[in-house]
Amino acid sequence: MEQLPAQMTVVAISQPGGPEVLKPETRPVPKPGPGEILIKVKAAGVNRPDVAQRSGSYPPPPGASDLPGLEVAGEVVALGDGALRHKLGDTVMSLVAGGGYAQYCIAQDAQAMAVPPALSIKEAGALPETLMTVWHNVFERGGLKAGETLLVHGGSSGIGTMAIQLAKAFGATVLVTVGSQDKAEACVKLGADRAINYKTEDFVAVVKEATGGKGANVILDMVGGDYIERNYDAAATDGRIVQIAFLGSAKATVNFVKLMVKRLTHTGSTLRPRSNADKAAMVAAIEAKVMPFLREGRIKPLMDSTFPLADAAKAHARMETSQHIGKIVLEI
Amino acid sequence: MEQLPAQMTVVAISQPGGPEVLKPETRPVPKPGPGEILIKVKAAGVNRPDVAQRSGSYPPPPGASDLPGLEVAGEVVALGDGALRHKLGDTVMSLVAGGGYAQYCIAQDAQAMAVPPALSIKEAGALPETLMTVWHNVFERGGLKAGETLLVHGGSSGIGTMAIQLAKAFGATVLVTVGSQDKAEACVKLGADRAINYKTEDFVAVVKEATGGKGANVILDMVGGDYIERNYDAAATDGRIVQIAFLGSAKATVNFVKLMVKRLTHTGSTLRPRSNADKAAMVAAIEAKVMPFLREGRIKPLMDSTFPLADAAKAHARMETSQHIGKIVLEI
Repeated sequence: MEQLPAQMTVVAISQPGGPEVLKPETRPVPKPGPGEILIKVKAAGVNRPDVAQRSGSYPPPPGASDLPGLEVAGEVVALGDGALRHKLGDTVMSLVAGGGYAQYCIAQDAQAMAVPPALSIKEAGALPETLMTVWHNVFERGGLKAGETLLVHGGSSGIGTMAIQLAKAFGATVLVTVGSQDKAEACVKLGADRAINYKTEDFVAVVKEATGGKGANVILDMVGGDYIERNYDAAATDGRIVQIAFLGSAKATVNFVKLMVKRLTHTGSTLRPRSNADKAAMVAAIEAKVMPFLREGRIKPLMDSTFPLADAAKAHARMETSQHIGKIVLEI
Repeated sequence: MEQLPAQMTVVAISQPGGPEVLKPETRPVPKPGPGEILIKVKAAGVNRPDVAQRSGSYPPPPGASDLPGLEVAGEVVALGDGALRHKLGDTVMSLVAGGGYAQYCIAQDAQAMAVPPALSIKEAGALPETLMTVWHNVFERGGLKAGETLLVHGGSSGIGTMAIQLAKAFGATVLVTVGSQDKAEACVKLGADRAINYKTEDFVAVVKEATGGKGANVILDMVGGDYIERNYDAAATDGRIVQIAFLGSAKATVNFVKLMVKRLTHTGSTLRPRSNADKAAMVAAIEAKVMPFLREGRIKPLMDSTFPLADAAKAHARMETSQHIGKIVLEI
């Protein structure tokens, strides 16, 4: 095992603003505390919350690193007290509380997962955030079952492309909304049963038609605004609608009779503020239920593009175009 | 067993309108089909959906009786094929699909429950609708657990007074909103830990204060309108809000960030359109979990007033004043 350096290169948010505020800095290499491991980062996924944090609208929770980056993959190079799940030299991927845009990053031992050989290190670094978000919201919170229909808005996003694969692997029918023909094709190629171009089609009508009038059993929404009441219209009786972001407006005027009469469940969650215990429980469930599909190579992140760490600003600029299909990752 | 008459007296809705449209009529005594029983009605509960049906805004579902009345208690006087749970002469109480305002009424064998000696026949006739509504929405849908806090709007209504008793019996803290000092006292007497007069107090602030800032774990709401976002404010993290009516407006402008960030679950249901299988499952759960409290006399409907069947119009007029505290029942 090589000697750990004292200093490392990171990309920090020099001030709130556009992609250009992301600047390389030198910081001390962190030391893992009890239950933590230190990962020598080889790939770090780029996510919407990183962009929101950079622009100043989503401050990191108390105690978390001020550096952006919520998921990494790399080599375990130091172990904190009581970190027994992984050993030095292991290749792991993990959700992290921040600080992923760096040469070294702290992770919780209980949240790190072994990288199966079917995944490249870049794919592994682009996996934890979307996998845990989709697993928790679609399966644990939305209760999607085999034979049911899932509607995913933003089908070509990192979240969307993971949701398509996971839901298909578990035997559901998957409908997605997208904003272009390219994105529609990418989603269908990944397994979506039908991609709805929201610019030319009414998703409520298409979902009704595709489900014999019944509607979708689970809807994963990151749009909000007028989608909320349209989701109520597109949902089946006893349907579950899970809100994971508001790329549109979070405020909406809604007729709640639809929620009551159809016995809908409207819920939502955000991953970052969950307790370490909650995140560890999600990881344990994923290791039991999803890891077999990852080992087979049946589920892997759809990769959009890779940038060197120093070009994190370019990665953010690409995400903000919304032209990407799948995941954007930083290579370190 | 006396010979059944061919004709019976009922109260029908002569045309949509005010209480005065409720008129006595003579109708044939119905015959129980497979899985059904015929009850000689001694008491029939009056409920808000009866009022809505009378005014023309809530038509009975296809196949149901056009007569109002969704719950009865009385004597089993005829059994349909395969009706094996009850026998002739038994005293039972049951949710019915309509037709309760009558001398005889059909019920599903699987939905009728034996009346325990601790209940009078009037109490029994006023029990099934609120008991099943509260059981399903607060416990099965809302998942209220011992040690949690329930907030009930309309605390002095039939639903509210049943919710107070059931939630206390299962070890929850119960907060209610009411519109007068009289109603507040009635709720506290029934076991409510705190009655909030919505005319003089802000229920969000009182709920926060009463829960050490945490909020209510389950909220049972029949108001809607601006209560919806205020419910989101009053709810605890991971709270469940269950919508069972809209005495206010069903349309509301809401900031759904609160639902997502607090991981709330907003759901709802109406009892009448549920399948017979669903209703039978609720009855089975109630027989197992709630019947012991009914036998002990620990839970019984709070009775507001009793009217003879022929005065059903007066019963409706009283309900529409909203001055009643607890259940209104017709004696037959």
